[in-house]
Amino acid sequence: MSKKQKSNKIMNMKTSNIYLKNIKQYIGQQVSIKGWVANCRSSGGIYFLQVRDGSGYCQAIVSRDEVSSKVFSACQQINLETSIQLIGLVKEESRAPSGCEIQVNDLKIIGQSADWPLGKKEHGIDFLMNHRHLWFRSPRQVAILKIRNEIIIILREFFKQEGFILTDTPILTGSSCEGVSTLFKVPYFGQTAYLTQSGQLYLEALSAALGKVYNFGPTFRAEKSKTRRHLTEFWMLEAEVAWMDHQGNMALQEKMISYLIGQVLKRRKQELIILERDVKQLEKVITPFPHLTYDQAIGYLQKTGCKIKWGDDLGADEETILSKQYDRPLFIERYPAKLKAFYMKPDPDNPKLTLCNDLLAPEGRGEIIGASQRIDDLATLKKKLKEFKLKEADYQWYLDLRRYGTFPHSGFGLGLERIVTWICGLSHVREAISFPRLINRLQP
Amino acid sequence: MSKKQKSNKIMNMKTSNIYLKNIKQYIGQQVSIKGWVANCRSSGGIYFLQVRDGSGYCQAIVSRDEVSSKVFSACQQINLETSIQLIGLVKEESRAPSGCEIQVNDLKIIGQSADWPLGKKEHGIDFLMNHRHLWFRSPRQVAILKIRNEIIIILREFFKQEGFILTDTPILTGSSCEGVSTLFKVPYFGQTAYLTQSGQLYLEALSAALGKVYNFGPTFRAEKSKTRRHLTEFWMLEAEVAWMDHQGNMALQEKMISYLIGQVLKRRKQELIILERDVKQLEKVITPFPHLTYDQAIGYLQKTGCKIKWGDDLGADEETILSKQYDRPLFIERYPAKLKAFYMKPDPDNPKLTLCNDLLAPEGRGEIIGASQRIDDLATLKKKLKEFKLKEADYQWYLDLRRYGTFPHSGFGLGLERIVTWICGLSHVREAISFPRLINRLQP
Repeated sequence: MSKKQKSNKIMNMKTSNIYLKNIKQYIGQQVSIKGWVANCRSSGGIYFLQVRDGSGYCQAIVSRDEVSSKVFSACQQINLETSIQLIGLVKEESRAPSGCEIQVNDLKIIGQSADWPLGKKEHGIDFLMNHRHLWFRSPRQVAILKIRNEIIIILREFFKQEGFILTDTPILTGSSCEGVSTLFKVPYFGQTAYLTQSGQLYLEALSAALGKVYNFGPTFRAEKSKTRRHLTEFWMLEAEVAWMDHQGNMALQEKMISYLIGQVLKRRKQELIILERDVKQLEKVITPFPHLTYDQAIGYLQKTGCKIKWGDDLGADEETILSKQYDRPLFIERYPAKLKAFYMKPDPDNPKLTLCNDLLAPEGRGEIIGASQRIDDLATLKKKLKEFKLKEADYQWYLDLRRYGTFPHSGFGLGLERIVTWICGLSHVREAISFPRLINRLQP
Repeated sequence: MSKKQKSNKIMNMKTSNIYLKNIKQYIGQQVSIKGWVANCRSSGGIYFLQVRDGSGYCQAIVSRDEVSSKVFSACQQINLETSIQLIGLVKEESRAPSGCEIQVNDLKIIGQSADWPLGKKEHGIDFLMNHRHLWFRSPRQVAILKIRNEIIIILREFFKQEGFILTDTPILTGSSCEGVSTLFKVPYFGQTAYLTQSGQLYLEALSAALGKVYNFGPTFRAEKSKTRRHLTEFWMLEAEVAWMDHQGNMALQEKMISYLIGQVLKRRKQELIILERDVKQLEKVITPFPHLTYDQAIGYLQKTGCKIKWGDDLGADEETILSKQYDRPLFIERYPAKLKAFYMKPDPDNPKLTLCNDLLAPEGRGEIIGASQRIDDLATLKKKLKEFKLKEADYQWYLDLRRYGTFPHSGFGLGLERIVTWICGLSHVREAISFPRLINRLQP
């Protein structure tokens, strides 16, 4: 039997297709792989193909002696990202990251890929962002997207275990939650709708129906911030719990974050290694987390020479200074009421303060969670609306929650892309989502 | 010790607070409950309170002889939805749905609730929708929201088991996917953005990076449809799989739907009973699902006297006729190309048709899934863009997927609220989401 006959016979055998993540189970067997060529080099009578299929990677070896001459000469047309189907024998190879390599018996080019735009080692960020639809095929971007997926799975698992109900509050809203200056407006059948900045007010209503509720969806801020921490469209996890107070709220956040980090380290070590993340830093994230009051934080900042005075908000720089002092996330609690949203419950020990907290990620990364106990008294809430110059008429349904069986309750919001950025050790939030949206970026 | 002293002592004992869903574990014990009064009646020296806390329900009995006179007289102020904290002894009660009742020792009113607006038996739908923030406290709405939550959990579980990666494609898009007439426009820093109608084109790009990908997020249609099946904002699950063909696509949908129904029946029987859902109908949803081609469907409809001709689209009425013939979901495949979107792959056996399918829910409920294999050939896709009068310039990045390692791929979109409506046996999709958005409904 000639090599050509042999090869055709194999291609016709309907060898079953496998995913590369499972390749170790097929050592010694003939398999079919469908994927893309992530790297290709040749040496004499051999092509070394780095093949990827989305689930994993493996080196495939095409030797002139093992394939038909037609297949071997077709290999000349293989470029970066050419899509192929190959059939070959899986061999153990302890030096390979996958633990295997494939000796190719037959190969078919499915899609050519001349002039792959991302072949060079270094590209500017604008070029990469313009090619986001191709850029995320790189091992680094694949690792980030897989970690993001895992973070979402773990967080949803956590809220299921804790007895929460997901409620998906609306994206199109008739009124604003946190100020109108940063709202995207949407013409809506003769009315004006706004893209949600937070589902919190809705979640408060739902917590009276379901006890423990959460949201995990996109939110929008039309902020003109061009920073490493801001997207115009980002995913937020928001939780709200009936009968939970400020202390319980912080305990819940601590439990969630420590569970999350522990599970990511268990499940996605391989991807963290691809990202060259210093996992030792993440391993330090264990309970209890340190706490500072806003007052203590200001005192500390003043001691280190910051020109900040009581009543000023903590900016990104101040957050970095504070969070760098600790190897785990840092709670900062009880901010001045005038710095925070209208719905936050005054501190009974000092009504100038509110029962709120931010949670700052370590390694100087700043805020990942904002949280508070909410005002549950009708008169106090009405007073606050007036102070914040918000129209009472727009909040009638929200006030109803204080008219009909009011109850203490608390909650928080967690910015997903900031968590991904921290866990993956990225320098900019734009890599933490498949198609980032920034002030100047709506494409692809 | 007087009754009053006894009562105070109990309130001070810091009896630990429990959730009603766990109450059976506390039979014979003293517990604290925080919740709302869903119903209240009195008979002589006894108040019977139906208490709910979001996790469950239980009857609490306040006897004049068992509480202080102060507590007993406070009960006069209890109305529907008054929030309370109570302490009492859990007793087994086999006639109660919870299996228990609580003999109250102490009770405190936390929030009054005079004139609860939803006290009457019957309200018009507009009144209920205006009070959505209170309406969803009713047992029926709670059951729907819990089933919705469970459906989402099960679907995400399924995609995790099948090796999919969640990718969260953007809500704000620079170009449209399925025609501009039903798009919501958003002014975006001097540009125009559109709210997503589908993440499919993005998912196709991501499937080349990750193999199997999916989305589960909000989507928007500015359709002027006032039907039982349409929301302007709805949640859609979209899946896309590299190297999967039309047959594999239908097999995946079948596996997903049969898994979903089986698991809902296992986990949420109690809520289906509250909704008086005929679960026997759902138990019939087992594989294999029947298939009709579009041609066969038209033939059948003509035989039953419908005035429909080949080339016409199937409307809601036709879908109802077809799906009523079967006790399980019905695939209709290979629609005429001119009825479907530009990206669908022509049927190689008859290029007037496309390799697509809809899946119709049984019991006359109509379409829940739309699906297709996608065009993977660059020249064919360019021709189709021209035929559909779409600007090639807007689709350059999408065409790139056919330039660099093109690959056969297929996917589908499932409308979450339609699935919830079917499973719960609702008459209108508006009850399938916490705060529905309709043409004339942006509040609360």
